[in-house]
Amino acid sequence: MLLGGACVRIITLLTDFGLEDGYVASMKGVIAGIAPDARLVDITHLVPPQDVAFGRFRLLTVVPFFPPGTVHLAVVDPGVGTARRALAVQSASGSFFVGPDNGLFTGALDAAPAVAAVELTEPSYWRTPDPSPTFHGRDIFSPVAAHLARGAALGSLGSAIPLDQLVKLALPPWERVPGGVQGAIQAVDRFGNAITNVPGALVNDHPWTVQVAGRALPGRRTYGDVPFEEPLALVGSHGFVEIAVHGGDARSALGLRVGSEVRIRLT
Amino acid sequence: MLLGGACVRIITLLTDFGLEDGYVASMKGVIAGIAPDARLVDITHLVPPQDVAFGRFRLLTVVPFFPPGTVHLAVVDPGVGTARRALAVQSASGSFFVGPDNGLFTGALDAAPAVAAVELTEPSYWRTPDPSPTFHGRDIFSPVAAHLARGAALGSLGSAIPLDQLVKLALPPWERVPGGVQGAIQAVDRFGNAITNVPGALVNDHPWTVQVAGRALPGRRTYGDVPFEEPLALVGSHGFVEIAVHGGDARSALGLRVGSEVRIRLT
Amino acid sequence: MLLGGACVRIITLLTDFGLEDGYVASMKGVIAGIAPDARLVDITHLVPPQDVAFGRFRLLTVVPFFPPGTVHLAVVDPGVGTARRALAVQSASGSFFVGPDNGLFTGALDAAPAVAAVELTEPSYWRTPDPSPTFHGRDIFSPVAAHLARGAALGSLGSAIPLDQLVKLALPPWERVPGGVQGAIQAVDRFGNAITNVPGALVNDHPWTVQVAGRALPGRRTYGDVPFEEPLALVGSHGFVEIAVHGGDARSALGLRVGSEVRIRLT
Repeated sequence: MLLGGACVRIITLLTDFGLEDGYVASMKGVIAGIAPDARLVDITHLVPPQDVAFGRFRLLTVVPFFPPGTVHLAVVDPGVGTARRALAVQSASGSFFVGPDNGLFTGALDAAPAVAAVELTEPSYWRTPDPSPTFHGRDIFSPVAAHLARGAALGSLGSAIPLDQLVKLALPPWERVPGGVQGAIQAVDRFGNAITNVPGALVNDHPWTVQVAGRALPGRRTYGDVPFEEPLALVGSHGFVEIAVHGGDARSALGLRVGSEVRIRLT
Repeated sequence: MLLGGACVRIITLLTDFGLEDGYVASMKGVIAGIAPDARLVDITHLVPPQDVAFGRFRLLTVVPFFPPGTVHLAVVDPGVGTARRALAVQSASGSFFVGPDNGLFTGALDAAPAVAAVELTEPSYWRTPDPSPTFHGRDIFSPVAAHLARGAALGSLGSAIPLDQLVKLALPPWERVPGGVQGAIQAVDRFGNAITNVPGALVNDHPWTVQVAGRALPGRRTYGDVPFEEPLALVGSHGFVEIAVHGGDARSALGLRVGSEVRIRLT
Repeated sequence: MLLGGACVRIITLLTDFGLEDGYVASMKGVIAGIAPDARLVDITHLVPPQDVAFGRFRLLTVVPFFPPGTVHLAVVDPGVGTARRALAVQSASGSFFVGPDNGLFTGALDAAPAVAAVELTEPSYWRTPDPSPTFHGRDIFSPVAAHLARGAALGSLGSAIPLDQLVKLALPPWERVPGGVQGAIQAVDRFGNAITNVPGALVNDHPWTVQVAGRALPGRRTYGDVPFEEPLALVGSHGFVEIAVHGGDARSALGLRVGSEVRIRLT
């Protein structure tokens, strides 16, 4: 897992291509032809079609746990075939990101900022100089990710982009308000846990309560700290304040969705 | 990725076994015991139960992107345990196919024809001489694929089958008609894009229009060439004429399904 | 696949984390940082949330097909963050199991009994000495599995647990009754096949009939032994008596579910 050109890196994949078609396997075939020893790890392919914000959240929760040198290949790409830029980025922690320039990497790059970015303009790193206008994932992003995994220099892939010109995905921010913090749900997971955008560091040293859906939920440490089927708030494993139901589904129990407002009272 | 017996090959897997049970993992365990260094790539396991045509299409869209020497292990097998033959095939491009002889490989073998085929009659390459009558995937096909990945000779796996005796999956053909081409939808993907059986090469040099579901859709280059939520036709990434809705689902918007007729007008 | 500390092992993963979030990929990232050469094989991540019995059955059907030395990492963990023990177990067949002590491994350990077990009390093998109270999968179980795959000694991971103190998942047993065997459905698979808890060895040498849902189904060898869409009984690939419909779904056709009683008549 050394970072020299001779070593093998991990390539993660995140797409909205689903699991029933051949799109993801086509990408893996292309990668295998260029970097046969690269280790492939799927993050998810069940991003709802073209839901960049959904992909952004899954990436930010996963990226910190991969070793330096990992290449994160992500394709949620409503603008494929149009003028949106194709992108490769290197972060301060030594990870790489390859995909469309539409804000998908914003969250992951908040934690470890970009140190260099290029627009993918060099066709010699593509599968073909005439890529499918509807499948850059296979014809541009996958071969570029494979070349990066083999140690290709970022700068060789295209022309540099000033870092302040990367497209960002604006999310509603949290803010301090009298007596606490105002925030919003930024994601709901498989279990129906609703994850806010409020960093857990803000509540860790105080007793606290979340006001949401007309209820006041006590801040606890884990699900088992409340009776079965009772709602609670906690600092979840992603490091954000989270709303859950012990053994249940907070989304349906409390009517929560992405964007729902929450207020945290610190006492 | 050299083809000598000492080198490691890729094994792809396509089944209708789903993702909730242990069937696929059992196959991977058997493979790992024989060819621990083989690289495993899932194509899909969400083929609708026993839908050979669905599997056939996914295979044909994926196989061209894998390196020579790849072993494609595919199990959609309504006839398991009956007289249908178990099969291994080598193609002109140096790929291998292992699975039931029911037409599953027909599409992939259209692009790179079979050069040799054997019926799997040699139990020394199976997991057990007494295979489960309901799970040849685990007990016959997986060990055979693993042995092929390790460099076993095709001919050692059983008795040769004349290539013209391989079962084919007959699909309705496209045909030239006055003013254009008549064809049909052969698959619908996760996004609701409807892929016809008409090769894109037939329309690439003309302005063209697709007549489907009582509408005339202009042939374009990519989704973004029409307004959001508008339908269009294009040559999709699989190389066939495809019907899509920009940012939407053509299957539901236009009432399309596998088998729906389409007519392409070339002007 | 030798068992020395220098060799690379397989790590299988089974969870109820689903396929849409980043939980599984986070675990794989942690593993890659410790054991970059370990081979990862997913069993399933679609265990219904907190359904330990569902996970138990998938594990027992898969584990016998993996090579000795495989590490089975399984996280279906309703008690995460509470007093339930975190566990690593070695079995008589040389496999390892890592996960919560809640009975998840009971079925797999029926076939190859535990020979040693430890409670995971040694934080130097964790990702952090301060693990997330809601995600031991990422912070405790994954790093421990990775260390085992690299050859760490079981005993170094924590304090020994007497084998008779491992939590067991009690399932209703089968029993001999006049004229046959009484049992129950223990799982239903993707196809709607209903798998009983009655070992196939009990019926293999007799003509036999299963009485279920008011019907008497003849015991056959494979699906194709009855007409299309007819129900049958057979000894399934897991080695248990199973109820199926040829080309159909026995669950819906016969109204079966986990726990449904079946009676087998031996003649």
